Amino acid sequence: MNLFSNQNYISQLAIDCVIFGYQERELKVLITKLNFKGDFYSLPSGFILQKEGVDEAGHRILKERTSISNIFLEHFKIFGEADRTNKDFLENIINLNQEHFDSDVSLSKADFEWLTSRFISLGYYALVDINKVTPIKTALDESMGWYNIHEIPPMMMDHNEMIEKALESLRLNLDTNIIVLNLLPETFTMKEVQDLYETIFEKEYARNNFQKKILELNVLERLEKKFTGASNKAPYLYRFKK
Amino acid sequence: MNLFSNQNYISQLAIDCVIFGYQERELKVLITKLNFKGDFYSLPSGFILQKEGVDEAGHRILKERTSISNIFLEHFKIFGEADRTNKDFLENIINLNQEHFDSDVSLSKADFEWLTSRFISLGYYALVDINKVTPIKTALDESMGWYNIHEIPPMMMDHNEMIEKALESLRLNLDTNIIVLNLLPETFTMKEVQDLYETIFEKEYARNNFQKKILELNVLERLEKKFTGASNKAPYLYRFKK
Repeated sequence: MNLFSNQNYISQLAIDCVIFGYQERELKVLITKLNFKGDFYSLPSGFILQKEGVDEAGHRILKERTSISNIFLEHFKIFGEADRTNKDFLENIINLNQEHFDSDVSLSKADFEWLTSRFISLGYYALVDINKVTPIKTALDESMGWYNIHEIPPMMMDHNEMIEKALESLRLNLDTNIIVLNLLPETFTMKEVQDLYETIFEKEYARNNFQKKILELNVLERLEKKFTGASNKAPYLYRFKK
Repeated sequence: MNLFSNQNYISQLAIDCVIFGYQERELKVLITKLNFKGDFYSLPSGFILQKEGVDEAGHRILKERTSISNIFLEHFKIFGEADRTNKDFLENIINLNQEHFDSDVSLSKADFEWLTSRFISLGYYALVDINKVTPIKTALDESMGWYNIHEIPPMMMDHNEMIEKALESLRLNLDTNIIVLNLLPETFTMKEVQDLYETIFEKEYARNNFQKKILELNVLERLEKKFTGASNKAPYLYRFKK
């Protein structure tokens, strides 16, 4: 079976997705364990069809691997060293294991050549609500799951570096992107915003300073409290400006 | 003569360079007028050799077109729409003009096919001191020169959009990159920094606010004034911290 080589993809160009997931003050990354003998971990990846735009390909890959669409997905860096290739990795696998695949997948010669050519990778990142995502395995995956940012396994090629660089971009652009990330409910408290920032930046903010900083971004509006007759100690609710 | 198609380039992938030049409170862009009949303007562009890294290719192209090396050059965006091609442009040229090139260049069939295929372009930008640069024409260029950011001509394909997006990135990252841009002399006054910022952001800053903002970046050190016996009204000099 030819998985890649007979598709109408642009050659030597890949997309790797660093999909961050946020859930209850934890930041995780979606990682796939490959269907080879041994422990081989990879980011969800794919290629660009001749007839689709690069961003469009990123969204397609994201949808194929997480079932979600219409979310914020941004290119953050090119990984383009001349010696960047899967060749050593795949040859090792095949030398180590007579039957290099565990089960029902075999790699055609054309696919092997496709996968071992030099690839320039376009790094994309997204930040999603883990509760809204169903990871979807492909034929090459043994399993797929969320790994805490502090418990990322040693990964294929430069995928560990990709995660580091994506986290830098996520932090650098969080103020600008907070409104499009769609990570908070329709209305939310200041504490929920602070929890999100503290998780992503891995540091604590003083409550007053944080509130000042966020309000200065000028993207939030505070809702009036409804008079309930109760002691009214409920925190203010906010929503994003339209 | 085959200019492109027989080189060992990665196919369907181009690099376009937005080279900003700064000189006496003016921001300019390096643009080439192509050696076709009619007014066709382009950014300096090139392709990636199979044996070189993507950043390495960017630096090579920059050096080939400006003679300078070892400068700050950064990828800022991918231009990857599916219908992004030179085809209409080149076919128009060739339909309009029996002799589609002015002088000593002709495009082989293989080069025409290479140039009219779908290209994904990796946008890079640099900011250089115009006094240090010698623009270098290729066989495809009629002329090459610096255009004020407010006097950019209508350009090929999406090159006008590339300049806009590069300017956004230059502004967004100026605080972070000011130390590596190498645009100021060894020692400089606060006014020289403010001139640079005001030119790039096209706005004026209040002197005290600007000084406060820049000092908070924590990248400058102020030199002690030497006692000269004169009235000592010379402004303080600064340099970047090592």
